[in-house]
Amino acid sequence: MKLELIENGFIIKHNEHVLIKHTSEYPAFFIGTGVEKIASYRGNFDIKDHITERIPLCAVQIKNNEIGFSYNDRSPIILNITFSLTDSENIQLNIKQNLSSYNRFWVKLNSDPDEKVWGCGEQMSYFNLKGRNFPLWTSEPGVGRDKNTEITFLSDKYNKAGGDYYHTNYPQPTFLSSYHYAFHVNTTAFSDFDFSHDFYHELMIWEVPESIEIYAGDTFLKLIEKLSLRFGRQPKLPEWIYNGIILGLKGGEENSFSRLENALNHQIPVAGLWCEDWAGIRETSFGKRLFWNWEWSKKRYPRLDKKIQELRDKNIRFLAYVSPYLCEDGELYKVAKEKGLFALNAKNEVALVDFGEFFCGVLDFTKKDTREWFKNEILKKNLLDLGISGWMADFGEYLPTEDIYLTNHVDAVLMHNAWPTLWASVNREALQERGLEGEVIFFMRSGFTNSQRYCPLLWAGDQCVDFSRHDGLNTVICGALSAGLLGNAYHHSDIGGYTSLFGLRRTKELFERWIDMAVFTPVMRTHEGNRPDENFQFDQDESTLCHMARMVKIYKHLVPYLKSLVNEAFEKGYPVQRPLFVHFESDLNTYDIQDQYMYGSELLVAPVHKQGVTEWKVYLPAKETWVYVWNGQQIQGGQYITVPAPIGQPPIFYRKNSAWGDLFKNIVNIK
Amino acid sequence: MKLELIENGFIIKHNEHVLIKHTSEYPAFFIGTGVEKIASYRGNFDIKDHITERIPLCAVQIKNNEIGFSYNDRSPIILNITFSLTDSENIQLNIKQNLSSYNRFWVKLNSDPDEKVWGCGEQMSYFNLKGRNFPLWTSEPGVGRDKNTEITFLSDKYNKAGGDYYHTNYPQPTFLSSYHYAFHVNTTAFSDFDFSHDFYHELMIWEVPESIEIYAGDTFLKLIEKLSLRFGRQPKLPEWIYNGIILGLKGGEENSFSRLENALNHQIPVAGLWCEDWAGIRETSFGKRLFWNWEWSKKRYPRLDKKIQELRDKNIRFLAYVSPYLCEDGELYKVAKEKGLFALNAKNEVALVDFGEFFCGVLDFTKKDTREWFKNEILKKNLLDLGISGWMADFGEYLPTEDIYLTNHVDAVLMHNAWPTLWASVNREALQERGLEGEVIFFMRSGFTNSQRYCPLLWAGDQCVDFSRHDGLNTVICGALSAGLLGNAYHHSDIGGYTSLFGLRRTKELFERWIDMAVFTPVMRTHEGNRPDENFQFDQDESTLCHMARMVKIYKHLVPYLKSLVNEAFEKGYPVQRPLFVHFESDLNTYDIQDQYMYGSELLVAPVHKQGVTEWKVYLPAKETWVYVWNGQQIQGGQYITVPAPIGQPPIFYRKNSAWGDLFKNIVNIK
Repeated sequence: MKLELIENGFIIKHNEHVLIKHTSEYPAFFIGTGVEKIASYRGNFDIKDHITERIPLCAVQIKNNEIGFSYNDRSPIILNITFSLTDSENIQLNIKQNLSSYNRFWVKLNSDPDEKVWGCGEQMSYFNLKGRNFPLWTSEPGVGRDKNTEITFLSDKYNKAGGDYYHTNYPQPTFLSSYHYAFHVNTTAFSDFDFSHDFYHELMIWEVPESIEIYAGDTFLKLIEKLSLRFGRQPKLPEWIYNGIILGLKGGEENSFSRLENALNHQIPVAGLWCEDWAGIRETSFGKRLFWNWEWSKKRYPRLDKKIQELRDKNIRFLAYVSPYLCEDGELYKVAKEKGLFALNAKNEVALVDFGEFFCGVLDFTKKDTREWFKNEILKKNLLDLGISGWMADFGEYLPTEDIYLTNHVDAVLMHNAWPTLWASVNREALQERGLEGEVIFFMRSGFTNSQRYCPLLWAGDQCVDFSRHDGLNTVICGALSAGLLGNAYHHSDIGGYTSLFGLRRTKELFERWIDMAVFTPVMRTHEGNRPDENFQFDQDESTLCHMARMVKIYKHLVPYLKSLVNEAFEKGYPVQRPLFVHFESDLNTYDIQDQYMYGSELLVAPVHKQGVTEWKVYLPAKETWVYVWNGQQIQGGQYITVPAPIGQPPIFYRKNSAWGDLFKNIVNIK
Repeated sequence: MKLELIENGFIIKHNEHVLIKHTSEYPAFFIGTGVEKIASYRGNFDIKDHITERIPLCAVQIKNNEIGFSYNDRSPIILNITFSLTDSENIQLNIKQNLSSYNRFWVKLNSDPDEKVWGCGEQMSYFNLKGRNFPLWTSEPGVGRDKNTEITFLSDKYNKAGGDYYHTNYPQPTFLSSYHYAFHVNTTAFSDFDFSHDFYHELMIWEVPESIEIYAGDTFLKLIEKLSLRFGRQPKLPEWIYNGIILGLKGGEENSFSRLENALNHQIPVAGLWCEDWAGIRETSFGKRLFWNWEWSKKRYPRLDKKIQELRDKNIRFLAYVSPYLCEDGELYKVAKEKGLFALNAKNEVALVDFGEFFCGVLDFTKKDTREWFKNEILKKNLLDLGISGWMADFGEYLPTEDIYLTNHVDAVLMHNAWPTLWASVNREALQERGLEGEVIFFMRSGFTNSQRYCPLLWAGDQCVDFSRHDGLNTVICGALSAGLLGNAYHHSDIGGYTSLFGLRRTKELFERWIDMAVFTPVMRTHEGNRPDENFQFDQDESTLCHMARMVKIYKHLVPYLKSLVNEAFEKGYPVQRPLFVHFESDLNTYDIQDQYMYGSELLVAPVHKQGVTEWKVYLPAKETWVYVWNGQQIQGGQYITVPAPIGQPPIFYRKNSAWGDLFKNIVNIK
């Protein structure tokens, strides 16, 4: 990575690729003002921006290591940038604004039509971002996420919730380029990373950011390693995770525990029982929701304390659920209100958020008292002390931007994207303070820069219970790969999907295909979905129980290999699920593939993500001989092949000379 | 209207209302650059703009009558504006750009939340434009025009044709304000008039326009008069129009003429027979389309020449159809190609446009030869010489913006909006050159600035065959009122609507409600719609034939009054259909009403535009006593009242002391 001064400007380049070229004729930086309108409805945000000024910073004055930028030679300097080469491969731009009246900033980077770009958090629709723009704002991901589908149309119409390709619980202003550099903007402001232009990228940020970091690496793996160091690495997975699947059930004590028993009777290896309804239930028109008062519901789980101990004796853990909000009609709300732990509105009342037929107070995690109380009274006392070994730390995307005042006095528009990380840090600290890291785990769907540091496990959010292009099974792979490149080593999803609306129902086929994929993710976990009674469940069909038993046994069989990947993640930050190209840089065919992945460096997985198919087309990267697991056939890479695709036989291939070859070979023997 | 110089700027005001206040802190003018992306599909345009610079013109230098604008005191002057007060009430801003590199221009006007704004061409969804932005670009108006409806969803999905509230065949960069001024920008570039902000309007134009005209008037009628002079007035309607209804039929000679006979046998007064299929037919998946080769189809109308003469003997005129394109598979295409009359693409081939399963050449009306040929060989020889008395001059909105080269060398992006007026002028000239103005008529849906000067009659385009909010019967009223304010005195619509897609079918009820409204428009004309066989037609039901006969008789009964309105239009430019507020300025309740209108100054019409209703709510303006036509009841204005709403008894009211009282009173006696 090099910084070169040229006439009236400068160049930043890596190898022969010019990333940024700034001249007075073609400036790379612009500053301006804008007036935003943000309308929110249950975690869906309608964001409009009206740009009132956009000034090209044409003129530069270079002094030592500092460059001053202005509109023209005779205008005052608006912005100063100092460049620090953190090492020979990385550059940091530290930005200082002389006039604070500007609130929009643009950076233009060179590109070309062949460049590939990845990252921007957990992207569910497009892995290669080139060709589109990506507004970066944590929110509900949308239902259907495709304006051409009926379910998105209906969700938009009735709930403003249809979403689009860029909506995600976890955005991040960081991307990697096929030119072997990574680019990160230090901001929590709304931003729009626009890769839609052939010959440039344009990043727009709703503030003048403090700094910009640019990393270079000879290989993509090297870049991932750097980013994972920069954003923080996750602890290793708890040992108990490897025991099998986590069953998600929310039918109350008798129902959940007896169904667990049934699963065990069918020889399904179970690592945990996850009852998100541990704190109670609330019926809404959306489906079965939870009672957001984070304490053991003795009504719904009368003997939970004893039950958790009994489970432990069987080497099965119990998992629960929390969110960073408390419902108005719960007991804890009263306590938190009394203690002044909520964010307030202009009338000095608790700032409430509509979660769909119920309202909750926003716990103000910028306040030390709130963090301590939530950690001590809820996470430690109500969860850990009860023997709970994990939880879904849900939500984090809903921070309203209007009529809310936070203790740290920062504008909620700037705090909105910061919230997921803040929420993750509260959970992480509770574990650290109890010394339970690597023993207790929580998993989140929301995220932002530095989530990596706090959140030990991502989950892919709420897919539709279908095979749809933008909200179905396949989107989970895209999410894992994009988040993984930014240093999120662990990813998993609701087996079977979650959202069932407007007549859409989960089928047995979908559920079983999802299991077949989840075997090759670090954690297997089922979910009943939002409307359990109307959707296919793992135990309503004998053959599915048997299928699940066999597939979880394969997961267990692979645990030695998985543990090696966990070690790699710990040491180098490599994600467990990886895009093909990080291991096959020279094979350009791999750069756009987003529905296959490498499970570690040795195993290629190509999940079947369409309905009613009997065979499946797979790309095998070049310069490798692949072994098809199910019949041992050796196939030369560098070509597409078609394999049979019955349920229970997901298309998986390993490298012919893999050190793990024997383990993979034996998958076929597991019954 | 006054121009006042203040420190670092100026003010333009009318009475006490400041229209424009320019200071260095709050500049009213901005200049910049943008890169547009225009994707078109069958007349539907997807327009994206990427603003790369937007410079506030903060600093002014005032010399005599000229103001120079620059970014700041030390920057060069970018723009000069001279102000000419054309009379004490009007101001013209003549704009000169010193650097031609800028292609975006913004004007900011003062506003407040109570201001009302009208105009911007023929707007079908919203009459008062305040609160929304209006991109001004002639195009298909869309099917459904409401993203919350199934038909718009399906039209978007399958045809990119759903449209939105601002899509119109006839945009115009001109608006009127409730502060009694009118604002016009002299440009044919794409523009976006944004009235969505509480305290300002912002007009964005894709060029630095030559000039801006601002008119003031003590009354709205005075403003209309000024605008109609500015944009040109229409000739009076031909006398034969008053004879009754124009029947739109397209079943070929035998079918069309025998159905006309049937109508006459049912005592329906008929002014004209309009056979748009006179040049032949083409079946597409959309429905029955026409064969775009503008000459008498002897196959479909074997004895048309004689038939036209026979009709004339019965005092009935024959009307036809043309568009500014020729289909590839027609004979005239060959001729025009041979003569070089088409616009060309980069390969020097004829520039073709996709009209939905058929392609047409774009006649280049910027070329004198093309205009002359089309006027002489088509309009005069093929239409007028055959005895045709009128035609639909369809389309005009489809000029592509890419890969098309025009003889006048102007960029097609700038010519796109100019095309409807150009097309109107060709038609108008043919009539003028034959001395047939006021005797032969044509009607258009597309329009732009100066359409008023050339097009004698607007028609409201293609509504859905329903009562829907954004594409049904009621939108025709909004279209008439908004276009009328800009000096388009004559407006009418397809009785029964046009578009039948995705299972939507015209009902008898809709057809009859539409007739009930059309009686109170200057011209009555039916249309079979795009799928005649699947939709209700006037003659498939005895009772509808009788209903139609009675309603057309009411139209005829009102002809003396209508002629007085035509005279008024000729002398003062007042439209026949007028918003309530132009006659009731002091009653602010009238300012937002868009589903009632004054038919002239004397008759208030409140068309029933919902399905299955038995009564109808009407607002009667204050300071007038109104007579309800159907029972003679006198009602004090300034209130909402509810009247029965059977078909055949449209809610109409006249002023108690109207000079036309006897005529209106006798409507009830017409059987």
